[in-house]
This record gives sequence, structure tokens and C-alpha cells, in this order.
Amino acid sequence: MRLSSLQNPQIKAWAALRTASGRRQQGLFLAEGEHLAGEALQAGAAQALLVDEERQEQYEKYLNTPVPVYLMPPHVLQKVCDAKTPQGILAVCPIPAQQELGSLGGRLVALNGVQDPGNAGTIWRTMDAAGFTGLVMDEKSADPFSPKALRASMGAVFRVPVYRCASLAAALAPLAGCAFLAGDLQGEDFFARAPVQGDLCLLIGNEGQGLDEETQAMATHRLKLPMPGGAESLNAAVAAAIMMYDVVRRNG
Amino acid sequence: MRLSSLQNPQIKAWAALRTASGRRQQGLFLAEGEHLAGEALQAGAAQALLVDEERQEQYEKYLNTPVPVYLMPPHVLQKVCDAKTPQGILAVCPIPAQQELGSLGGRLVALNGVQDPGNAGTIWRTMDAAGFTGLVMDEKSADPFSPKALRASMGAVFRVPVYRCASLAAALAPLAGCAFLAGDLQGEDFFARAPVQGDLCLLIGNEGQGLDEETQAMATHRLKLPMPGGAESLNAAVAAAIMMYDVVRRNG
Repeated sequence: MRLSSLQNPQIKAWAALRTASGRRQQGLFLAEGEHLAGEALQAGAAQALLVDEERQEQYEKYLNTPVPVYLMPPHVLQKVCDAKTPQGILAVCPIPAQQELGSLGGRLVALNGVQDPGNAGTIWRTMDAAGFTGLVMDEKSADPFSPKALRASMGAVFRVPVYRCASLAAALAPLAGCAFLAGDLQGEDFFARAPVQGDLCLLIGNEGQGLDEETQAMATHRLKLPMPGGAESLNAAVAAAIMMYDVVRRNG
Repeated sequence: MRLSSLQNPQIKAWAALRTASGRRQQGLFLAEGEHLAGEALQAGAAQALLVDEERQEQYEKYLNTPVPVYLMPPHVLQKVCDAKTPQGILAVCPIPAQQELGSLGGRLVALNGVQDPGNAGTIWRTMDAAGFTGLVMDEKSADPFSPKALRASMGAVFRVPVYRCASLAAALAPLAGCAFLAGDLQGEDFFARAPVQGDLCLLIGNEGQGLDEETQAMATHRLKLPMPGGAESLNAAVAAAIMMYDVVRRNG
């Protein structure tokens, strides 16, 4: 189908998915660009495919799909896109229904006010590489379905479930027996930690303030990444990655 | 001194420091925001301090300095600032003279076409935390003195020297005996690598294409970070951080 008018209500509805409220109201998100849209199709997660009609040839291999394809002139597609240099293809996907916390598996990362969507998305991507099983985010954290977070996540949205909650402390309390590892400048050396058996959850705090008190209080292990150089802190996504990969190294 | 006109040639000169060509012509960069400007003053690296005259009280502790202070109305300071929400303070600093490669120390990271200034800055910050001694960047990589890279670097510019060159292969060739560790999807398991003694340099490639052929050919160790999950790659700054911190863990 071809849509050519900026006034088309369907175009307006899709454009609204660039905002958090639009995504919440419609229960949909946008997978922008060839990589993400391709992953959405492959995962069977796309509800519609939007393609720049001037780039049909380039994206021909995606057009033969059971998913409805909408062709539109570049200026119309541009209205739906968040990217400054749009690639001319995007998929509209339903936001997955939230799984129960207990079904997220035993390798979790929980974000406490991680506000930068790039950091949240990068953590999601690293989880996807490291084989972590579930991302938990409180309402102070960035919206994981924003275009920026999704761009940084590189398709993790289609493999690693996200669980959103008002407060980590309340949501994670039922996870009896789970080890909660928190960064703490007064903690013991991360690399010298005693073995952690069974389920574990890394607690990652806000870029400036770190973990809030309530979340810090949940920690069963307080650990410090050594900083032999001059810096006093690490980027949140970097700290999460170093910890995740050391878990991979030690626990497999 | 107070500067109040957007037409002031000094204001125009500082505003030009937001661009790569302006920084190159003038040999200066901008350290924006309270954190970076404060670090610049502390490091004795500031040539001038620019402050929003409406926020003098907030920044009073920085005003008593041997460095010349220029007060200006917010709309004038805004012209010099790159940040969308400027903090009302910035330092103008000379770009440090390039040290000789041999004086950079024995823990290097070399960037081969890392184009995202946020990634370059984050790698710089992680080096500063992990005690790495020198950052080498080829001309295909982002400008480390851009406001975005400096923001992500969190002051590493004042502690970890950067060496810029046309080509890594040509520049690093004289480093006899240095181990060059490269990511390679066909390489051996990074965590199972044999001990690396002495000087080492991590080679970090472009976000999409990885290392170019010439740089890949320099590698003395080809290593792969395990990805037991579904993702096929890691963010460049994340991969660099995991490798740097595993060097810290093993070699101290």
C-alpha cells in the first residue's frame, strides 16, 4: 500500500511512536533502519513495514513478507523517523507483553535510574552478547523502547526480555536466593570476590548519583572495580559490561 | 573582564572552537561544564575561564584564579557552548603538544576509525580509570578534542596523553617488542589467552567495519571475546573496556 500524505492519520499515529506517551498509548515501538527492521522481520515481531518508495530496489529482499508493507515518499517516512539520516526502512512492532519476573532466568541486570537511553541500550546489547537473561528497569530509567535506546541495543529487544517496574526494591524482593551485586566505592575488590553461585543480578545505578539508598540496601555483595588510574568513576554501560564479562569468564 | 556582544571578535574566535577546523587553526579546545572546567583549572591547563554573569555566585570558588575570567550574559556564552543545556561555565585550554610515541608508556589503546566521539571519549575515560598510559588515534577516528568526546572522557584529557597520526601501522611500527592485541571473530578465546608480558597495545576498530586490513596485519595476538548470547558484536567502547579491565585483573 502507498501512503503519500502527511495528513494521513496512520502516518500521524506512527510519528507519535517517537514519543514515550505515543508508545504507551498505542503499545507499539519503531525498529528503525535496515539492521533493526531486518531483525524484527526475522523474529516475527513486526506488525508493519514502512519503506521509502525511492529505495524499494535496495530493500527488495524485505518486501516479500507476510507483514503489510507501506511505501511512502521520503518526506513522509522522514516524519515517522527519529534518525537524522534515515535509512528509508522501519518496522512497527508491538511492545512485548511483560513476562513474569520469575521467568526471566538467572542472569539479570537491574537499572536504577540509568537515564541515558544510549547507556540503557548499550547495556541491553552487552547482555545479549554475554548471555544474560533479563533486563529489569525502574521508572526512573530511560524508556528502553525509545529510538535511541533501541539503536544502541542492536536488536537485543528481540532476544532479551525487559521487565519494567516502579521500584527495583519492591519488584525484586520475591527473588529469594538471588545474589545482588552492587558497585560500591567502599566495597571489596570486584575481581577478588568470593564465587557467586546460582542466580545473580547486577545492580547498575544512575550516571551521576549511582544507586539510590533503597536499591543499595538490597545488595548482597558490595564490590568495587579497581581504578588504578586517575579517574574516579566509569561510564555506567562500561561498568556493567566489565562486570557481566567477568561473570562470563568465571561462571561460564 | 565583561564581554557582552555577540559581535566581539574574541567571542567569535571561541565559538569557532566548536568545530574541528577552528580548534586546529587556534590550537585550543573548550572544556565545558563545571566538572571539566574545574579539572582544567586544577590541572593548570586553562588559558581563560568563561562564566555566565548570572551564575557568578554559583561558581564563585572558581573565580579567584590566576587565569583570566571573562563574564558574559547567558546568550553570549551560549554562542560558545556546544551543550544543549549549558552549565554556564567553561575553560579555554591549549591543545597539548604531542609527546613522542616512545614516551607514552607501555599500556596503549589505538583507535582505527572509531568515529563516534562518544565512543572515543568513553574509551579515554576507561583508560584513565584502568591506568592505561596513552591513547593513539588515526585520522579516520573522531576528533578527541570535540565537545562530545571531551564530555564522555570526563577529564581524561588532563591525565592520559593522546597521540594522533595518519596511520596506526606507520606510527606504531617503531614499537618493537610491544604486543598488539586485536579483536578477531576467528581468534582464540580472549580469556584463555597466554600471558602477555611487557608493553601492550589494544587495537580497536571502526564501529561497523572493525579494523582495516593494514591494522589487522599488525596484530601479534588475535583474540575473540566470547558471545554466548544472541548478539554478534559489542559496542567498541564496551569491547575496549572489557579487554582493558581483564589486563588490569591479570597484569595488575
